[in-house]
Amino acid sequence: MIIVKVGGGKNLNWEGIAEDIKKLDEDVVIVHGANVFMSEISQKLGVLEKIITSPSGFTSRYTTPQVMDVLTMVYSGLVNKKIVAAFQKHGVNAVGLTGADGRLWLGKRKEIIYAKEGAKIKAIRDSLTGNVESVNAKLLGLLIKNGYTPVLTIPAITKEGELINVDNDRAVASMVKALKVKTVVMLFEAAGLLVDLKDESSRIPTIDKEKLDSFLEKAQGRIRKKLLGAKEAIIAGVKKVYFGDGRVKNPIKNALAGKGTVIQ
Amino acid sequence: MIIVKVGGGKNLNWEGIAEDIKKLDEDVVIVHGANVFMSEISQKLGVLEKIITSPSGFTSRYTTPQVMDVLTMVYSGLVNKKIVAAFQKHGVNAVGLTGADGRLWLGKRKEIIYAKEGAKIKAIRDSLTGNVESVNAKLLGLLIKNGYTPVLTIPAITKEGELINVDNDRAVASMVKALKVKTVVMLFEAAGLLVDLKDESSRIPTIDKEKLDSFLEKAQGRIRKKLLGAKEAIIAGVKKVYFGDGRVKNPIKNALAGKGTVIQ
Repeated sequence: MIIVKVGGGKNLNWEGIAEDIKKLDEDVVIVHGANVFMSEISQKLGVLEKIITSPSGFTSRYTTPQVMDVLTMVYSGLVNKKIVAAFQKHGVNAVGLTGADGRLWLGKRKEIIYAKEGAKIKAIRDSLTGNVESVNAKLLGLLIKNGYTPVLTIPAITKEGELINVDNDRAVASMVKALKVKTVVMLFEAAGLLVDLKDESSRIPTIDKEKLDSFLEKAQGRIRKKLLGAKEAIIAGVKKVYFGDGRVKNPIKNALAGKGTVIQ
Repeated sequence: MIIVKVGGGKNLNWEGIAEDIKKLDEDVVIVHGANVFMSEISQKLGVLEKIITSPSGFTSRYTTPQVMDVLTMVYSGLVNKKIVAAFQKHGVNAVGLTGADGRLWLGKRKEIIYAKEGAKIKAIRDSLTGNVESVNAKLLGLLIKNGYTPVLTIPAITKEGELINVDNDRAVASMVKALKVKTVVMLFEAAGLLVDLKDESSRIPTIDKEKLDSFLEKAQGRIRKKLLGAKEAIIAGVKKVYFGDGRVKNPIKNALAGKGTVIQ
């Protein structure tokens, strides 16, 4: 089984991803983001989007109940169903689900998170963010065995039935363990991991997993989360993580052929 | 198996519905609307909501691609996941799906629909509306057999992978046939079918199915669609359709006890 995590941009080639899935010999689980759409709709609805940075330098979304409403609309509604439709168009029998459905991603809300604000560290107690603690591998297995391709996204859910925002990349790592996945592909809108974000020719073809930490220290913003996700996936048992360009003709095929960045 | 169709209002007692489901001896499939939320979000996003009336007097939503985006956000995102969370909170293992997921509701887009505009009849060719033609009973059966409660809503999908808007009440009738359902409960924000919409004491306790057509002729707006859905459900093989109040403590139990309107 392969988990394919796809970013939340507007230029991803979903139809190419569907075509690749059809040709693969292995079962696929898709996990997707929607951050570009989220920003757009938040703005239109006049809902403030606030990204906070933890003292250790990881960014996350300050998730008020209002933000959770928009998140649920955009991730599990608009974007998830567009992907399902693109897949169905190409003969991939997709079923779109969130971590709340069938408690696929059962987690805990963080009672407190810390945010750097200039030189100060602020404690935030009302953000609906948390971590996935268990995965309903049985439901995923049931769908896959019957020919369906699960297309997953946030929110996750707590034992108490509260919707929580979790990091999609890190949720992938939780699934790796539960589903005993050996291969993870992460697609986004870049040729791979770049030394200089503005220069596509600065792509790093391979990263030795022992050197991941030094890359993690240097990386910033969203890419830092992706590297953390990759690191956690490897700790959870994955042999290789393939970063690849989601905009090209054969996004999965190319990534697996090492045309992006391979972490091994 | 019972299909419970729940309206799209804001005052529905979802937690009470969950409690009723737990106590029922039968499996339940939920189908829900979201029209009040749809109007609110459409307005906030500045997307024009246009309800058209067919020459035979049935209302439907003029579904442009922009309206379809909002519909997908509100029905399958915001409202569907809030229901899933409320059910999970009460120990009902809900899985929220649209008609597009696993082609649960496979349908055809209407190439042309007619709308009354004053004395004129206008032909509309670009509305993404259609009818459900087949139901993926196998997927629903799979979920139910494994202890999940499906929570379904629009959109449906075409063979070509296009999302389409279908009438939820009429989709229920399609499912009745596919799942061999004998009982349908329809919950909304009223005590039952009322002679005078403003007077809750004017509730009609029972309607003989032979007399449905005469009620259909007199009814207007959304209630007309509900009666049509009930009629189609009976034609498809249902023995009784229970209309009931979705705002009370035990919405399903009360409806089944005949405290709303029973069509038999």
